[in-house]
Amino acid sequence: MEYPKVFKEVINHFTLLPGIGNKGAERMVYKLLELDQESLVAFGKALIDLKDSIKYCQVCGQLSDQDICPICQDNDRDQKTICIVESPKDVFAMEKIKEYKGTYHVLHGTISMMDGKTIDDLNIASLMKRLNDPVDEIIIATNPTREGETTALFLAKFLSKYNVKVSRIANGLPIGSQLDYADEMTILKSLEGRKDMY
Amino acid sequence: MEYPKVFKEVINHFTLLPGIGNKGAERMVYKLLELDQESLVAFGKALIDLKDSIKYCQVCGQLSDQDICPICQDNDRDQKTICIVESPKDVFAMEKIKEYKGTYHVLHGTISMMDGKTIDDLNIASLMKRLNDPVDEIIIATNPTREGETTALFLAKFLSKYNVKVSRIANGLPIGSQLDYADEMTILKSLEGRKDMY
Repeated sequence: MEYPKVFKEVINHFTLLPGIGNKGAERMVYKLLELDQESLVAFGKALIDLKDSIKYCQVCGQLSDQDICPICQDNDRDQKTICIVESPKDVFAMEKIKEYKGTYHVLHGTISMMDGKTIDDLNIASLMKRLNDPVDEIIIATNPTREGETTALFLAKFLSKYNVKVSRIANGLPIGSQLDYADEMTILKSLEGRKDMY
Repeated sequence: MEYPKVFKEVINHFTLLPGIGNKGAERMVYKLLELDQESLVAFGKALIDLKDSIKYCQVCGQLSDQDICPICQDNDRDQKTICIVESPKDVFAMEKIKEYKGTYHVLHGTISMMDGKTIDDLNIASLMKRLNDPVDEIIIATNPTREGETTALFLAKFLSKYNVKVSRIANGLPIGSQLDYADEMTILKSLEGRKDMY
């Protein structure tokens, strides 16, 4: 007893996605069979159109409908402050705090020894172009992971030849967390990054 | 800052699937963007073709590439024993034990007072047709849930007018489980269903 061919095909496609195993993919396909054909066609077409219809901002590299994203076009934002992040979803995360008024630069990845990815594989050319105009500060907001830290160090070195202030987002205990549940590295970083209260 | 239109569209489609929330759907779409266009087209086309290319066996109602599924065509199997299950995936579950040599009948649902689904909404017409030929035994293997039990009772009543042995799969403690973790109903069923050892 085997699944029909297209059934298996759809299962295989789903298992390419993060967090979806064979069993999960099966459940997806059974659910799809319950949807009407119209929804399936819309779903299928959206997948096919996805890549062609999505643009990346020519300035910062963020996902966008337009050639230049709304943030890079917005003169109410501080165009002289650039926050460097790893991926488009990090921009959405930063925007959620509603406090940051500068712009972004999306690297689309990190330097990774494991995967043989160097700084040349990142969205750096357009960053260099942005540095031709005066920039006040560059905030490096890559993730505090091995790859993110490596990338931050490389970027800091790379940016040292430009006349620009470079900063790194802080590490420490997340709000609402408990000291006795935190890992040693986080506590260490939290201690090193302590601030004078008076 | 908003996601591009098609991006949001694909997210919405994914959230229709079981166990996928907004955050999970976002992760899926980011992953899709990393795939090559060829894979996306294949994925999209498979979704569009899914329903049209999948047939249901005209005899038992199981998912199939053909008009009649391999099990219903297989003369090495006992065509006079029919195991009634709720859904196509239950057939795969039964086949995994590699012990059952009869055929199946897939109801494609259960009777459900909540959803207003009656026996007429199930795949019953083709079951009646099968009962025109001699049948030795019908095993009702709907799930031991409220809906599955209701459906089993209805089926038993419905089948009583035919000259056929009707049985129901056993309830009890699953193999490898522990008595003190089992719920009361399972223990009760396990006690009621006890078998003489000598």
